[in-house]
Amino acid sequence: MRLAVVGATGAVGHELLKVLERSSLKFSELQLYASPRSAGSTLMFRGQPVTVQATPEGAIPADVILASAGGSVSREKAPLWVKGGSLVIDNSSAFRYDDDVPLVCPEINGEAALGHRGIIANPNCTTLIEVLALAPIHRAYGVRRAIISTYQSASGAGAKGMEELLEETRNVLSGGQAGHQAFAHPLPFNLIPHIDVFQDNGYTKEEMKVVWETRKIIGDPDLKISCTAVRVPILRSHSEAISLDLEKPATPDEVRELLRRSPGLKVVDDPEGNLYPMPLTSSGEYDVEVGRVRASLVFDGGIELFVSGDQLLKGAALNAVQIAEYLQEKGALKTAASAT
Amino acid sequence: MRLAVVGATGAVGHELLKVLERSSLKFSELQLYASPRSAGSTLMFRGQPVTVQATPEGAIPADVILASAGGSVSREKAPLWVKGGSLVIDNSSAFRYDDDVPLVCPEINGEAALGHRGIIANPNCTTLIEVLALAPIHRAYGVRRAIISTYQSASGAGAKGMEELLEETRNVLSGGQAGHQAFAHPLPFNLIPHIDVFQDNGYTKEEMKVVWETRKIIGDPDLKISCTAVRVPILRSHSEAISLDLEKPATPDEVRELLRRSPGLKVVDDPEGNLYPMPLTSSGEYDVEVGRVRASLVFDGGIELFVSGDQLLKGAALNAVQIAEYLQEKGALKTAASAT
Repeated sequence: MRLAVVGATGAVGHELLKVLERSSLKFSELQLYASPRSAGSTLMFRGQPVTVQATPEGAIPADVILASAGGSVSREKAPLWVKGGSLVIDNSSAFRYDDDVPLVCPEINGEAALGHRGIIANPNCTTLIEVLALAPIHRAYGVRRAIISTYQSASGAGAKGMEELLEETRNVLSGGQAGHQAFAHPLPFNLIPHIDVFQDNGYTKEEMKVVWETRKIIGDPDLKISCTAVRVPILRSHSEAISLDLEKPATPDEVRELLRRSPGLKVVDDPEGNLYPMPLTSSGEYDVEVGRVRASLVFDGGIELFVSGDQLLKGAALNAVQIAEYLQEKGALKTAASAT
Repeated sequence: MRLAVVGATGAVGHELLKVLERSSLKFSELQLYASPRSAGSTLMFRGQPVTVQATPEGAIPADVILASAGGSVSREKAPLWVKGGSLVIDNSSAFRYDDDVPLVCPEINGEAALGHRGIIANPNCTTLIEVLALAPIHRAYGVRRAIISTYQSASGAGAKGMEELLEETRNVLSGGQAGHQAFAHPLPFNLIPHIDVFQDNGYTKEEMKVVWETRKIIGDPDLKISCTAVRVPILRSHSEAISLDLEKPATPDEVRELLRRSPGLKVVDDPEGNLYPMPLTSSGEYDVEVGRVRASLVFDGGIELFVSGDQLLKGAALNAVQIAEYLQEKGALKTAASAT
């Protein structure tokens, strides 16, 4: 199986290579692509240098393409790659809402990936981190309403977002005034309740992605979800406060037990020991931390919880690789048999 | 009227002096008290040096005492100050839940202050910032349920909290590892979903303060409120995402109009112009910013909104001074007539 990464030099691309190094995914060849600006540079993979090529105009000679070069590149190029015979696992939002494109979190709806027609969409980072906890609770208790407030890190705006936060924080600490390019306002020691563009209903597209994508992954188009998405001055890991109204009443103990058995999650919930989900502990980890599980004070039998997960890993690179691994395990990658 | 500030050298004390400098409150004398460690130091007030005295064992020769030296000092000393004839406006949580102690946000329930028996409690900062928006909406539409997620700054832990955030951020940027004393974990580029101590129900005391105090200020002991309180790496201003289930359906336009007419608030709600509440713009301001007003996606006729307000000002010092101003305007400060 020939594997390609498009957008190899970006923040997610960087994590994709690290995840692939540790992955059990079998592939015979790894091709790296990026914008012409980065072409010719070299990235190390399992101790070997790999030269980055400029993303070609048309098809890419790979069986599987992990694309993470932004929505406009994907929208333009993915149909050409599919025509050339590749399966595209796309990290952008370009195709997520197309009826014939599966939107996949392998722990929740892996089987949806099997029905792809050339493109599989990797969900939004904030959705992935929340749905790992929401889906098993929905299955067991029926979520009637979910209210989500997010605490999203600078990595959501890529490497340039993280660099800007570091650089402008230094600037502020030296007595300067923070500038901004990656964000709508300076982020150091500030927060910004504005991620992606505003929609007509007053919600941002980021907030609506959480609504639309959670519904699609869980397979319940009527699920009631509301979201407030806020950028906070943190480098990696998105965190989310989640309040759930349930059809069947749940106790915190039952929910903790359920989440302990649910894949992709790590229950970190020992208030006495000062243990709860935090970016400091969830950054760099594959599992999403979940904790602060407690009975809702506004919904009878409802639950409140808090999650924190690495936006670049489970929220992006890791999930994309897990989709490929899932398909290979199911024998659904066409040249998997010939892989090394 | 002789005025005293206890805890004059702390973060809130510092703001109290600045607010008093701009205040219309009439007083003939200003006494400053702090711990013996700070006694003898000098603070400037309206261009004049004022010597800080050690807080005495017993009574203080002042008509009004603005106390901001922490719960244990207030619990021990306030009864003695009251016995000595002073009115105590207390910034700690020591007396907030006593039935005979009014808990006052002047814009909402100023008249409650008139019934004091020597002590008036200044509410929790997170509550004050939220209740300015919640109370008028409750009055007009009836709040059935409120779900609140907070983004609380380091200033909630006083001057030492802000200093630790700055110092440890410098430390991280120089390649070091952040330490912590003021917070349960390092705060730079992190968040901590743990403010004040955990209660038996899994909520922190900070979260329950929002529940208990909002009910008491609004005068509705059955109001359903849930809160997740999170410390974020911001110096000043607490922000809060608020989701409201209403008895009488409201539209965002109606609510914005209502909030524009409500005292203590500044409606900052122009998504097209990238204007919404943020610590960057609310810090140092008297008014609490409110925006991101939009129709709830989970409650029919409900509303979502976002607030940001200076924790040290409206969330502490300003509200305490406003309580004194309110009483003086009502002729309810005993020696107000003789004030200069």
